[in-house]
Order: sequence, then C-alpha cells, then structure tokens
Amino acid sequence: MIKLSNFPIKTLKTRPQISDNISTSILLQAWFIRQTMAGVYNYTTLGLKVLRNIENIVREEMDNYWSSEILMSWLSPMDIWEKTWRADIDEYFKVPTYGDKNYRLNPTHEEIVTPLMTEFINSYKDSWASVYQIQTKYRNEKRAKSWLLRGREFIMKDAYSFHITDEEFVEYYEWMKKVYMKIFERLELLDDTYITLADGWVFTEKYSHEFQVVLPIGEDEIYICDSCWTSHNKEVVDLENWFECTKCKNKDHRIEKASEVWNIFPLETKFTKPFWMKMLDANNKEQDVIMGCYGIGVSRLMWVIAEYNMKDKWIAWPESVAPADYYIIVIWEENIEKAEDFAKKLESKWKTVILDDRMWKKVGFGQKAGDCELFWIPRRIVISPKTLEQWGFEFTKRWEKSEIVNF
Amino acid sequence: MIKLSNFPIKTLKTRPQISDNISTSILLQAWFIRQTMAGVYNYTTLGLKVLRNIENIVREEMDNYWSSEILMSWLSPMDIWEKTWRADIDEYFKVPTYGDKNYRLNPTHEEIVTPLMTEFINSYKDSWASVYQIQTKYRNEKRAKSWLLRGREFIMKDAYSFHITDEEFVEYYEWMKKVYMKIFERLELLDDTYITLADGWVFTEKYSHEFQVVLPIGEDEIYICDSCWTSHNKEVVDLENWFECTKCKNKDHRIEKASEVWNIFPLETKFTKPFWMKMLDANNKEQDVIMGCYGIGVSRLMWVIAEYNMKDKWIAWPESVAPADYYIIVIWEENIEKAEDFAKKLESKWKTVILDDRMWKKVGFGQKAGDCELFWIPRRIVISPKTLEQWGFEFTKRWEKSEIVNF
Repeated sequence: MIKLSNFPIKTLKTRPQISDNISTSILLQAWFIRQTMAGVYNYTTLGLKVLRNIENIVREEMDNYWSSEILMSWLSPMDIWEKTWRADIDEYFKVPTYGDKNYRLNPTHEEIVTPLMTEFINSYKDSWASVYQIQTKYRNEKRAKSWLLRGREFIMKDAYSFHITDEEFVEYYEWMKKVYMKIFERLELLDDTYITLADGWVFTEKYSHEFQVVLPIGEDEIYICDSCWTSHNKEVVDLENWFECTKCKNKDHRIEKASEVWNIFPLETKFTKPFWMKMLDANNKEQDVIMGCYGIGVSRLMWVIAEYNMKDKWIAWPESVAPADYYIIVIWEENIEKAEDFAKKLESKWKTVILDDRMWKKVGFGQKAGDCELFWIPRRIVISPKTLEQWGFEFTKRWEKSEIVNF
Repeated sequence: MIKLSNFPIKTLKTRPQISDNISTSILLQAWFIRQTMAGVYNYTTLGLKVLRNIENIVREEMDNYWSSEILMSWLSPMDIWEKTWRADIDEYFKVPTYGDKNYRLNPTHEEIVTPLMTEFINSYKDSWASVYQIQTKYRNEKRAKSWLLRGREFIMKDAYSFHITDEEFVEYYEWMKKVYMKIFERLELLDDTYITLADGWVFTEKYSHEFQVVLPIGEDEIYICDSCWTSHNKEVVDLENWFECTKCKNKDHRIEKASEVWNIFPLETKFTKPFWMKMLDANNKEQDVIMGCYGIGVSRLMWVIAEYNMKDKWIAWPESVAPADYYIIVIWEENIEKAEDFAKKLESKWKTVILDDRMWKKVGFGQKAGDCELFWIPRRIVISPKTLEQWGFEFTKRWEKSEIVNF
C-alpha cells in the first residue's frame, strides 16, 4: 500500500513543456521519471511500478515457455570480447581499473552467456536450452535521443537459446515469436505491432526480425504489406526498385513511422565457435551449436506504451501495467482507519492500492481526484461520511459511471 | 514452476575444492552462482531465487515502514561528484565517453538522491521523507576477496532520509534500527547479529553503526559486551588501554570474528549543503537539512546466510529464503501429469515448486533426492505408483519423518 500522507511525491500543477514529446511531459508532471543526464533516468515510485509490471509480464511469459531466468554480471573482462572481435566497438563502454587494465560494462551478454552455458551443454539432449535475464545494459550513445528511447543505460530482457540443428533452431525461433505476441497482447499493443524484417546488424548475415509498434513519433520507417501483415524495415527495402513483399510478393504497401520494441536474431555459430561450445549428436559426433538471441526493451516499452496510450491530459495505462489497481480517496480524517482496513482487505486479495489520506490544507477532493487521473489508476474509491451513511463507498471504474457499493 | 526436464542445470557430483570456503563450494556445486571474474558473479536460476527472496523481505519491511521505493540511475555526470569532493576517489569507477569526458559508474547514490529530492523537499512538512532502492553498486576493488564478500559489483538496498532537526533524525535512525532487526529476524540471523559501533568513514565525524553477523571467517573483529549486547568494531576500540563499553561502561567483553551486512550512517549536512537543499521551518526560516543513509548488502547477505547455515554437505537455507517451497519427485513417467496438476494447485496457493520430472537414463530416485537436499528445499513430495496406490504422496518436511498424505 502506498499512503500518500507518507509519500514524498508532489505532482506538478502544470505540465512541463518538452518541445516534441507530450507523453514524456506527462511522465514528468506525474513524477514517474526524472532525468540524471541525457539518456539516463531515475524511476520514481509510480514509474517504477509501471516498469515492474511490464517486467513481470515478460517474466511470466518467458517462464511459462520454459526459459530459465538468470542474472548475469554487469562487468566483464576485456579478453572475452577480443575473442569475438568486439573489443573495440566505440558504442561499448570500457571501464579503466588499476594499471592499464579495463573492464567492459556489458552492452549485451553473448560473450558472458556462451562460456557460462558451455559448462553443461554437451550433447543433443541439452539442445533447446534457453536462459534469459532482465537487466540494465549500457551503450555509449553519441547523442542520447527522445528521452527513454535511445538511452545510455536501459533495462532489457535478453534471452539466449542453443540448438543442435538449424531446423530445431527455426522451430524455437517461431515459438519465441508466439511468446512475444502473447506478451504484446497482455500489454495491449498487439493491434499495431508488426513483425518486421530487418538487417542482421553485426550479428548475422541473414535477416533479423524486429517487433515494431506503429507510432507517429517513432524513429523507424516500416513498409507494411496489408495482405499478409508482414512489414519491412526501410533499411532492407530496395528503394530504387518497386517494393515487393518478401513473403506474399504483393506490391501494395503503406509506409508508417514505428518504434522498435524488441528484436530476435539468428546468431548461427558466431558466438559458439569462438568459445568452443559443441554438442555431441546422436552418433556421438561433435557438432557446432546454433544460437539465437531474443531481446525486449523493457524500459523502452514503458515509454512506447505511454506514447501509444496518450490522451489529451494523461496517459491511459492499460490495466495490466497501471501503477496500482485501486486509488482510495479519503475526504475526512475520521474515515482514515476505515479506508486503511478496506485497503488491507484489497491487498489480501493481491490487489495493489494507493491510499490518498493527505489531510493537510490545500489538498482537497479536486486535487486527489486529479492525481488519480494523472496517475491513471483504473479503479477509484471515495470514502466519506456521506458514502458511509449509505453503508458503502463510491466506486468508479475508468470510463464508467460511479455507483455506491456496500462494504 | 521450474520443471527440471526443461532446465539447463546439472549439479556437480563432487564439490569443487575452494581452499578456505566450503559454503561457496556448495553454491558452485549446486549451480547457484558462477564467477565471471574475481568479485563479479552470475546468479544462475536457483541462486537468483534466493537473492530475490532476500530482496523481497527487505522490500516488504522498508515498504511497511513507509519508505518509498525508487530506482536511480547507474551512470551519472562527473560534475555532481566534484561538488562533494568525491570525483577522484580511486575505488570509484570512471567511464570514459567521447572526447575527454567521463561518466561515473555509481558506487553509492548520495550525489544522485540529494538533487533528486531537492525538487520537492521545501518545508518542515516534508521532513521524515525517506526513499530507498535495490540496485547494483560498483567498486574498483584492488583485490576482490572471499567470493561474494568484497565484490567489484554487488547488489545493495540503500535508503536515504531527510530531516528538519537533529532530534527528528535520531528518532528516525532508531526507528530504522528496528526495521533492520525485523529483517534480521525474518532472515533467521537475529541471534548472532550485533549492532556495532564503527568509524564514520568518509561520511561523518560521528560514529556509524554496522550490523555484524558473527562468523568465524568474517573479515572484521568485534568486541562484544555481553551485559548490554553492544558491540564495537576493532577500529574504534582504543587497544592501548582497557576496553570499556561505550554504553554501559562494563569492562568485560569477548572478541569475535564477524561479517558486516549493513550499516547506517548519520550524514548530517555533508550532502544537503553542497546541493543547496533547505527546508523552511515553522517560522518560515530556512534551515539546513539533516540526512541519513541506511545500507543493506543484499548479495552479501546471500553469502553470509549460506556460510551461517552451512552443514556438512549442504546449506540449510532458512525457509524464508530457500529457492522453492516444494520439491516434487516423479518416479514414473505415467505420473507426470498428476504431479503437474498438483504443482499447479500449490502454485495457486502462492507456493513455489520445483518439479523433478527428469526421466532420462541415470537420473534415478537417488539423484533426485540428492539434488533436493543440495538445493535444500524445505518440503519434499514423492509421487509414485506405490504412493498413489494408497491414494496419496509421500511428504517429508526437513528434519521430520515422511508420511503418506492424501491428495
């Protein structure tokens, strides 16, 4: 339970003016986030709740599909990055220690997870092994952009899978697409999300897949084929010729701005070879191991969901990620105890509650109701002598009419 | 639910020989942790469960006592560290970016939290404000020591409070001691924990308080006065003269090795002054703000609890932090479905379950029961055609006799 009388938050009366980004201004007004420096953020209590709700949805679906959660180190020794020729990438931070030595502040974890998993991946029976973590990543961005969007540090879910054959890998890769669709559905983003064919980047010569959410302020441009719902990142479209859908060969398309929220990469043997990860096949013969990686930008999702659900004055968070389930407004001091009892009852049913028991001057019903809307808590309860006279409280679900409900 | 048939873990048959530290060897044997480099660790699934259980106990008690959880940034600009004369401490990492610029990889968060809170701390009504986070910290240790004990990166809970008067601060400081005692109690460490008077370090000229757990392999030496349970770190004892308890003036004492698991510091105005944090008092006069900080070494606690509860062959985790509540052993393939149903039933009651449904050759009952002990899961359930004949399963609680229980 969050009791606002003990809570060091004050929402701002007016929205800070951030030139091109209203949703971020609302996040600042509601005190969900504060900037330490460009691309580097503090998540204050309610912002952290949203972030954790997103994290937990991702975690539950990964667990449901038998990926095992681990937590890898933030630092690593430089020599493992030399093995994969990624020691000198400018966008990856080096951290000097004593002497001439450096550590790496990990921007991604292929170099950590591959040696880690080599210990117990020995035979085809260990194929289909999958681990994931939810963790901070660091990127030495020259120009940190668009608030949470291109950060110097950000929270990611990154999963890694290991396979004996290409066929098995492809099967897993398709399976993971389904897991991702399930996550999208719970985050209420599914309707405007497209699986987008993109460049393999430094990871692979094949295409990779991005999951793009259509957003007018997105940094990517995608070519959507409406007959098969496939989409193509601008970078893989041959713009000098006609556009042709790689899947259904359709030539019709529309172009939309979009924001990438996750990606999945076939890594082939790019990382398993340098770390000598091998599997014995059914004939006891050593085989190279095929690897895949599957990212989700957890902190980026918070920003994308905010932008996607932005209304005129607030962000209409989907119920699944809203900072709390209930917001209880107490009007008279004498009802605080009753309100607290009721909040505890809700908590015993695993609901989360914000109790607005601020009694000091100037915080009247108007401000309390206003903060409830600014935070966008889906269920509001008002307790007053008047509602108690009728043996109950006033209950309002977002977008619906208030009613008096008995305790 | 963790299904071991889908789980990429194999416990080691024999305990790796780590010279002076048996509990760490057991953590390695049971695949709870793996080292990336000295002082830098990966937490594999079951180790992560223990870590999260410790985290959640800390979180619940901090929330219960009205501290608000936030999550501050990992990186910060160097200029804020110049304001407090902490820019050039060797043990704090600098991270070079483009040009001659550096970022700080935060070793502690006074420099972040003080400007952050200045925004809404204005008057005496905002006094007693308290925020905390659970987050990774980094320290450029010359010699990382004793496995998890002195790490280059570690997980900490750090709380910060802000007060208008010294008296109010002292009141809060004592209150926080009680919160800590409650946490200790839930971690089953209370009997051998001493509040220890220690040096103020770089933070304060006054004494600080450490919470020390008596452990033969601890890195500190504490002087315990058994008549008032106060203890003194060796560093504050005047060894050239007789020991005299600072509290009860008793001269009797015993000396024990111990490990520091947390500390609380009076910070006075050391950080609030450079960042110009002020409060208006009841007479509308500006006053300096008194600040306190309250640390708990979350990842260190995992290691201390392991060492404290180490038996001959395993670590007897307290129930409150054990990696799962139940371990279900399935002996015959035909009973897997029944076992899964039962596991789901337990999960619906918010219990956590490891389902040992490994059916492949060489994983017999002996290895399953052995892994259950090595992981130290407090409740074991065996399902077999024999137990089902009697319409039930065999239930064993740690240290107690098995019995047949009906479904």
